[in-house]
Amino acid sequence: MIIGRDVNSDLCLSNKNKNMSIKYTIGLDYGTDSVRSLIVNVETGEEVASAVFNYPRWQRGMYCDAPNNRFRQHPKDYLEGLEYTIVEALKQAPQGVAENVLGISVDTTGSTPITVDEKGIPLSLTPGFEENPNAMFVLWKDHTGVKEAEEINELSKKWEVDFTKFEGGIYSSEWFWAKLLHVIREDAGVFRAAYSWVEHCDWIPALLSGNTNPKTLKRSRCAAGHKAMWHEAFGGLPSEEFLVALDPLLSGLRDRLFKETYTCDVAAGKLTEEWAEKLGLSKDVVIGVGAFDAHLGAVGAEIEPYYVSKVMGTSTCDMLIAPMEEVGDKLVNGICGQVDGSIVPGMMGLEAGQSAFGDIYAWFKSILEWPLKNILAESELIDEATKQKLIEETSDKIIAKLSSAAAKIPIAESGIVALDWMNGRRTPDANQALKGAIAGLNLGSDAPRIFRALVEATAFGSKAINDRFIAEGVRIDGVIALGGVAKKSPFVMQIVADVLDMPIKVARSEQACALGTAMAAAVVAGVYSSTAEAQRKMGSGIETEYHPIPENVEKYKGLYEQYAKFGKLVEFNL
Amino acid sequence: MIIGRDVNSDLCLSNKNKNMSIKYTIGLDYGTDSVRSLIVNVETGEEVASAVFNYPRWQRGMYCDAPNNRFRQHPKDYLEGLEYTIVEALKQAPQGVAENVLGISVDTTGSTPITVDEKGIPLSLTPGFEENPNAMFVLWKDHTGVKEAEEINELSKKWEVDFTKFEGGIYSSEWFWAKLLHVIREDAGVFRAAYSWVEHCDWIPALLSGNTNPKTLKRSRCAAGHKAMWHEAFGGLPSEEFLVALDPLLSGLRDRLFKETYTCDVAAGKLTEEWAEKLGLSKDVVIGVGAFDAHLGAVGAEIEPYYVSKVMGTSTCDMLIAPMEEVGDKLVNGICGQVDGSIVPGMMGLEAGQSAFGDIYAWFKSILEWPLKNILAESELIDEATKQKLIEETSDKIIAKLSSAAAKIPIAESGIVALDWMNGRRTPDANQALKGAIAGLNLGSDAPRIFRALVEATAFGSKAINDRFIAEGVRIDGVIALGGVAKKSPFVMQIVADVLDMPIKVARSEQACALGTAMAAAVVAGVYSSTAEAQRKMGSGIETEYHPIPENVEKYKGLYEQYAKFGKLVEFNL
Repeated sequence: MIIGRDVNSDLCLSNKNKNMSIKYTIGLDYGTDSVRSLIVNVETGEEVASAVFNYPRWQRGMYCDAPNNRFRQHPKDYLEGLEYTIVEALKQAPQGVAENVLGISVDTTGSTPITVDEKGIPLSLTPGFEENPNAMFVLWKDHTGVKEAEEINELSKKWEVDFTKFEGGIYSSEWFWAKLLHVIREDAGVFRAAYSWVEHCDWIPALLSGNTNPKTLKRSRCAAGHKAMWHEAFGGLPSEEFLVALDPLLSGLRDRLFKETYTCDVAAGKLTEEWAEKLGLSKDVVIGVGAFDAHLGAVGAEIEPYYVSKVMGTSTCDMLIAPMEEVGDKLVNGICGQVDGSIVPGMMGLEAGQSAFGDIYAWFKSILEWPLKNILAESELIDEATKQKLIEETSDKIIAKLSSAAAKIPIAESGIVALDWMNGRRTPDANQALKGAIAGLNLGSDAPRIFRALVEATAFGSKAINDRFIAEGVRIDGVIALGGVAKKSPFVMQIVADVLDMPIKVARSEQACALGTAMAAAVVAGVYSSTAEAQRKMGSGIETEYHPIPENVEKYKGLYEQYAKFGKLVEFNL
Repeated sequence: MIIGRDVNSDLCLSNKNKNMSIKYTIGLDYGTDSVRSLIVNVETGEEVASAVFNYPRWQRGMYCDAPNNRFRQHPKDYLEGLEYTIVEALKQAPQGVAENVLGISVDTTGSTPITVDEKGIPLSLTPGFEENPNAMFVLWKDHTGVKEAEEINELSKKWEVDFTKFEGGIYSSEWFWAKLLHVIREDAGVFRAAYSWVEHCDWIPALLSGNTNPKTLKRSRCAAGHKAMWHEAFGGLPSEEFLVALDPLLSGLRDRLFKETYTCDVAAGKLTEEWAEKLGLSKDVVIGVGAFDAHLGAVGAEIEPYYVSKVMGTSTCDMLIAPMEEVGDKLVNGICGQVDGSIVPGMMGLEAGQSAFGDIYAWFKSILEWPLKNILAESELIDEATKQKLIEETSDKIIAKLSSAAAKIPIAESGIVALDWMNGRRTPDANQALKGAIAGLNLGSDAPRIFRALVEATAFGSKAINDRFIAEGVRIDGVIALGGVAKKSPFVMQIVADVLDMPIKVARSEQACALGTAMAAAVVAGVYSSTAEAQRKMGSGIETEYHPIPENVEKYKGLYEQYAKFGKLVEFNL
């Protein structure tokens, strides 16, 4: 036993020595419900440790008003998660990793802005605003600024320059200006105390690197370009005249925001002494400029020029990169934006997406669950515990069972056609007022047939996006999928491949966003000279590839025409 | 005890004596799945006894091919049911009733024709055809003659006289000529042996009264006028030229069918000795000319001029009567027919209907049941017997629970609009190719909201029929509802009343069809001089009345416009 111990000690020592020469970066990935840290070996891409932290206040539903689409997050949820996940991941990691962390980069949801004071401190971390939702982060899915978005759109169309033109031509209530304008209109106290505003993805790097001054902290090109109407051609943000015309309350704010923006290959600074101590890392750790989760997810899934990187979850985010010189001045209409370097520095980043994807399947599942949760749940035939187990067991299998039943139904057999607009339409041509629809129903339209039509509708929604890119002169060479649906539903993925008539590669990494962020950190730390190089070295490759089945492709062409026709009828007549 | 017995004996005797002076009629009601006899006191309308017989061959699915919409019934099912139900009801009835039965009338489904030999014997009761579905009754819902109906419509529009004009202008695959043409085209053996054709409602009275000769048996005006394009203005059935142009196979058949038709106040004859003996009745019992179930149901529910009698079940049959002189030569377009005396002799009978009503609720229920029957049914958490009970218990409550949840949702709150064409559209403007649709769906559209929209859609379908009558100059003074939905669903009935903006009376009788048929028998037997008089004396009155709620009426006006708009989009563009 003693010998054994010695051997182990030797091994540890040898591992430690080995680790000494290996370098790591940390990807910090702030999602909607939780934050995850991922420590990655920069040479091999090996994911050596990871930790997750669920936002405690968010989990308790604090500061939110879901029926009115108000979703706010407290900065403390982010701060606690920052410390916990990095410290915890380092604990999990082999000895010697902490000393060899070269950089940290951050991705977050967005647009998720917060108002800050002159020092860049979020108002909700200052006295008097601790419990005020208007002093907190306004989460990406907060829709309280619907009216403000409409006003922005209206004014933009009348203005000499259309400031929405690089954001697809339609401004959304989910974005920066609509949100901040709504908040300052609603809350005079916050308006008076608000010096400036920062995005979540800007604040974390600013904090870690010790420069939170709103006028000088390094702002994310990704957030600013896609959500804040920032563009080089405008000399930065929309003009003061435009903003004041929108609302005199905005007067002077532009100067307290920013002119310059930075891509995620740029360093925001180095880790402050305070944070270095808290996290158990060196002060030499480089902090990268932040970006949005989906964008760095595309990097993690090894996006290539002219490949759509499709994050497929409750909704989708469809990203495409193309060499700047090839896109040139061309405007791609009806998407969510085109920003120099927003995904991969040096490349034009184009973003699109579907407002609901997996959410539509979940919606149909919730309809089918209704008798279980509202009738069976009240039965007195069996005991409470068994009943709950039975409901859960049945519920959990619905999507899988529906998928296997739906897979057996021949294409076009049911005659059902559906529209995937149950949460409005993000792209092409954003219109949040649109709604879902199902036609071609008869008394034989059973649950699997309807489910199949819903899946086809989501695939058709994907095709509408691809078609728009192509119609606007942006070719598509392939699709790389990531996210829960891509990983878990071969049934859905095959239909999407057939409908798109395009092979779809599914990225292997389970944590593509955090991995992409770790790749960005490796570039920032100087390990690699480009994102593409980091992807080649650190990428985890492709797990599966779905190939379109020629016979199906032909059949779906006819169905897609029906979808498009039905869509036009509903959009322009109902 | 002995004293008690004596008293009882006295009572029996007194009852018997009393019964001696009371007269009865029997209504024999052939439905889709079973036949029912009802013995009714002609003075009071009291329903003294009843018996039901489920068709045994039909129950075993014999001779049918449901996926191909072939539904056939063997005459033996009808014959066995005829004998059983009358004998059994007489057994249940107090002593002395049998001797005091004055008449029997018959209602059946329709158009449900069968081919017969020269003697009027159904081919399937003759050697060599016993098991041939083409030699059996072609049930009302058999759709094998879709192509033949199309040909009839096409030829009619080209012909100098449009023989479909008194049947709403569109011939259906559910009707006489389409069915018989399909059968003789498909089956050369049947074609060679077929001398003539009779409707189910003609055959039973012919049999009971002993005259089955196809050329002289008394044919029902109701069946001939609504389904066989018979009209006085045409001199009877469509011309020989028309029929031969349709198909030379029809050559000569017209002469072996009929010229005259009779309303249900006319006697077909008296009970034959053979049947009198079998049934235990007198040879003096008068047999009435038959009619369709829904039509005599309207009589049983005490239909009045300008009242829509709405049979609300899986589908609806909407009947209206109006004085002949007030309708005159006016053609009511887009309904299922207008026939002199088809409902109440002496009155114009107008028929319309919805192809699916309760069937739409049943369809939605079956979707919600899917996880119960396909996932929970396979669970191993509980024993088989409990599982079956649990599934049944849950299933049985779905419609009621959905109704009470849906009732709490404010009108127009969900934004969902549905079309009730899941089984095509019967009226207005028959189009069996139409399908159902649902629009206005979002991720909050739960099961009760969708159910509510489906109920509203069926109510809107009812309004479309009423509106058509009115647009064609036929006023509507009120609605009398009967059938399962009318009896069982106050939630649905209130919505229909609100949407129609019209009070709805629900008939009290649980057996309105059989009761109406017994009323017809009382007229045939000479007890009453008119159907109206029989209704006054034998009617069981109104059970409930639904009054439109003014506030709701206003709200539904807007929703109906959406329904109509959506309907036009789907009908003319998809």
